Amino acid sequence: MSSISTDPASGTRDFLPGDVGHREDVFATIRAVFEAHGFAPLDTPAFERLEVLTGKYGDEGDQLMFKILRRGDHEATGEADLALRYDLTVPLARVVARYGSQLVTPFKRYHIAPVWRADRPGKGRFREFFQCDVDIVGSDSLLADATTIAAVTDVLEGVGLSGFTVNLNSRKALRGLVEAYGVPADREADALVAIDKLDKIGVDGVAGELAERGVPDAAVKSLAADLGADAMVDAFRERLAGTDLGRQGLAEVDEVLGLLGGSVRGGEIVFAPVLARGLSYYTGPVFEVVHDDLQLSIAGGGRYDGLVGMFSGQDVAACGGSLGLERILMLVAEQSHTERGPQVLVTLMDDDAGADAIEVAARVRAAGIRTDVWAGTGRLGKQLKYADRRGVRFALIRGSEERVGGTVAVKDLGTGDQAAVAIDDVVAYIAARLDTSS
Amino acid sequence: MSSISTDPASGTRDFLPGDVGHREDVFATIRAVFEAHGFAPLDTPAFERLEVLTGKYGDEGDQLMFKILRRGDHEATGEADLALRYDLTVPLARVVARYGSQLVTPFKRYHIAPVWRADRPGKGRFREFFQCDVDIVGSDSLLADATTIAAVTDVLEGVGLSGFTVNLNSRKALRGLVEAYGVPADREADALVAIDKLDKIGVDGVAGELAERGVPDAAVKSLAADLGADAMVDAFRERLAGTDLGRQGLAEVDEVLGLLGGSVRGGEIVFAPVLARGLSYYTGPVFEVVHDDLQLSIAGGGRYDGLVGMFSGQDVAACGGSLGLERILMLVAEQSHTERGPQVLVTLMDDDAGADAIEVAARVRAAGIRTDVWAGTGRLGKQLKYADRRGVRFALIRGSEERVGGTVAVKDLGTGDQAAVAIDDVVAYIAARLDTSS
Repeated sequence: MSSISTDPASGTRDFLPGDVGHREDVFATIRAVFEAHGFAPLDTPAFERLEVLTGKYGDEGDQLMFKILRRGDHEATGEADLALRYDLTVPLARVVARYGSQLVTPFKRYHIAPVWRADRPGKGRFREFFQCDVDIVGSDSLLADATTIAAVTDVLEGVGLSGFTVNLNSRKALRGLVEAYGVPADREADALVAIDKLDKIGVDGVAGELAERGVPDAAVKSLAADLGADAMVDAFRERLAGTDLGRQGLAEVDEVLGLLGGSVRGGEIVFAPVLARGLSYYTGPVFEVVHDDLQLSIAGGGRYDGLVGMFSGQDVAACGGSLGLERILMLVAEQSHTERGPQVLVTLMDDDAGADAIEVAARVRAAGIRTDVWAGTGRLGKQLKYADRRGVRFALIRGSEERVGGTVAVKDLGTGDQAAVAIDDVVAYIAARLDTSS
Repeated sequence: MSSISTDPASGTRDFLPGDVGHREDVFATIRAVFEAHGFAPLDTPAFERLEVLTGKYGDEGDQLMFKILRRGDHEATGEADLALRYDLTVPLARVVARYGSQLVTPFKRYHIAPVWRADRPGKGRFREFFQCDVDIVGSDSLLADATTIAAVTDVLEGVGLSGFTVNLNSRKALRGLVEAYGVPADREADALVAIDKLDKIGVDGVAGELAERGVPDAAVKSLAADLGADAMVDAFRERLAGTDLGRQGLAEVDEVLGLLGGSVRGGEIVFAPVLARGLSYYTGPVFEVVHDDLQLSIAGGGRYDGLVGMFSGQDVAACGGSLGLERILMLVAEQSHTERGPQVLVTLMDDDAGADAIEVAARVRAAGIRTDVWAGTGRLGKQLKYADRRGVRFALIRGSEERVGGTVAVKDLGTGDQAAVAIDDVVAYIAARLDTSS
């Protein structure tokens, strides 16, 4: 009838029943943990007026935005006036500016929702993907930072991901560090970019890049020596103590560590003096959660006073974290997935069985048992195959003989056993067997 | 800093915490009921390639679609290559064509998701709104139709909307009816449009419109007489018995009624001989659920063999229903809303209280009690006001004296009572009081 491709659009995915169930379960756990920590849910529209998003993500972001054509007569102009949400932070800033005092302050919100970026699709990189952000707006207390880290790590532990390390730093410490090694102020940003790559390119790589970017030789040498030292963290602590900014940053790190009692559930938390977490907007503590075995970043965040005020024109203190949701969904074992398919199938033995089947199914369902009624055509074999593919445990078989006799044959699809049960006892019969075997 | 409007884009909405909670609760109930009936969840991307959607919704639909501009260098062309999902049926058809035998047949799926239409925004009419569809694909058995109606009405009853009427008809009966009154075949579609308006324009209005649309006088007169008759349904049944198509349609209606035992939970189901449900694609039984008091349609659906095959080029039997989700969300009393805000707030009495507060909160939270820690600055009065606005039941107050003495003051914000409780007993103390008062 048509040669239209039926694949989902490039970089997007269809989620068939098993996938949706798995994702919904993980989302439900995340919601419950964030709510247990006093965070409240927020949701905003999929698209924003173009002017709300433009210029917030740099030139690259503007390029990767999905822009929506004006409608109706304006369509011919080829102009866009809306764009799909690129992240959840700009919508948060808009909401904070728009609703102000309607929001209880400190405003603790989480937001789980898809965002859209026209990135080149690749392994694990999608054009439609979910983000999960948690933020505290309107508090400059470091308790807010500690609370965010505790909530994020409780979520990771809650979805079954234990065995991770929280690397904690402060942007102030980082800037103090660079200063302490004698990097000139105008080379600070370049130096941070280079140091941030330590994990990827090693000490020599960092040293090379620092030199390339015009950092003086003496600074490169002493920095490289400490980066390679066994007691790296101690060496850095010593250097940090030598500058005002370094001391401030170190105090922030130590206060957050102290507030958390030096530990988080499901993992450990350590001072990571070279952690940068990108460069643009963080102003205080920053953190990144790394999976111990896979060495993958699975969450991160920090304090970004200033960003949330972008629409209100006022400085608004804020800190938050973001879960690497798509990565987490891949890591979380499918075994944690609650089975939500039908537990019972009422089969159809003849053309007159329909009304009886619907009535029996309603009775079983009323006991809280997920009960499907065969809705197709075909013989019992086909119906049992359907039941098997859907993971059904019990098939109810009720021909005219059983209907007259007031019984039903209950077939256990796990064992193959079949028993004749009085129709009034069937709910109890099934309920007892589902209980003991789950 | 900027004069950008912080309102959400025209026709879209921000959902603040209370709203999100309410909506999520209703969605969770809907999911649970559909799963109890053996339906499985499906999710598809927010946008589709433009060619997948174009031409599927008529000229008006093509106009109202949100089209997405090509990205990067192609942006300058002003051309669109993607469009936001306009409904959930075309994505279902695409999925059925794409995944074929991977799907268990009959394929029983539900889908709750936003769709986007550039309609003129108005009272209760949005440009971003949620649809909730349930469909059975791959069965021509009327048991599928009955199953769909039972699931839809169970959902309505489940979310607390009882007191509704399911109007049931068959498109075959409707066509037979028109034929029986002597409406010429080439006027059939026009006659159906006119009759469908009975509720809105009355018998005289329908008669006038039929005449205007060129339906012969004799047919208009006899149809109008029966439309106005006290025993309208009986009169129509008699007419229907006079044509092949009418008899077929009547048999369909009676079979579906029989399969449901003549009743649905939470409401009643009746034969509604003039119900048309639009005109384009229904081929068999059609139904509409009307709220008894408000006379608002809150759900509807029918059999639409042929539509789902649009991409595969094969006829695919299908029937389904759609809930008027936004309307239902407005009707469902807020009282059904589960409170999910924090139950306990741990306050901060001094600058040294932070680590202790986080530790106490974790202890209370471990007992399944949603526990917030004050993350801002300011005195107790401000903290208690925050607690009050968030609906917190107990504030924990623990100054240096209490910390040394191993106690905590528990303030019941409902009664104003305050008690000193040993720190090791505080979880049990709160748990007992939350239990007995909820």
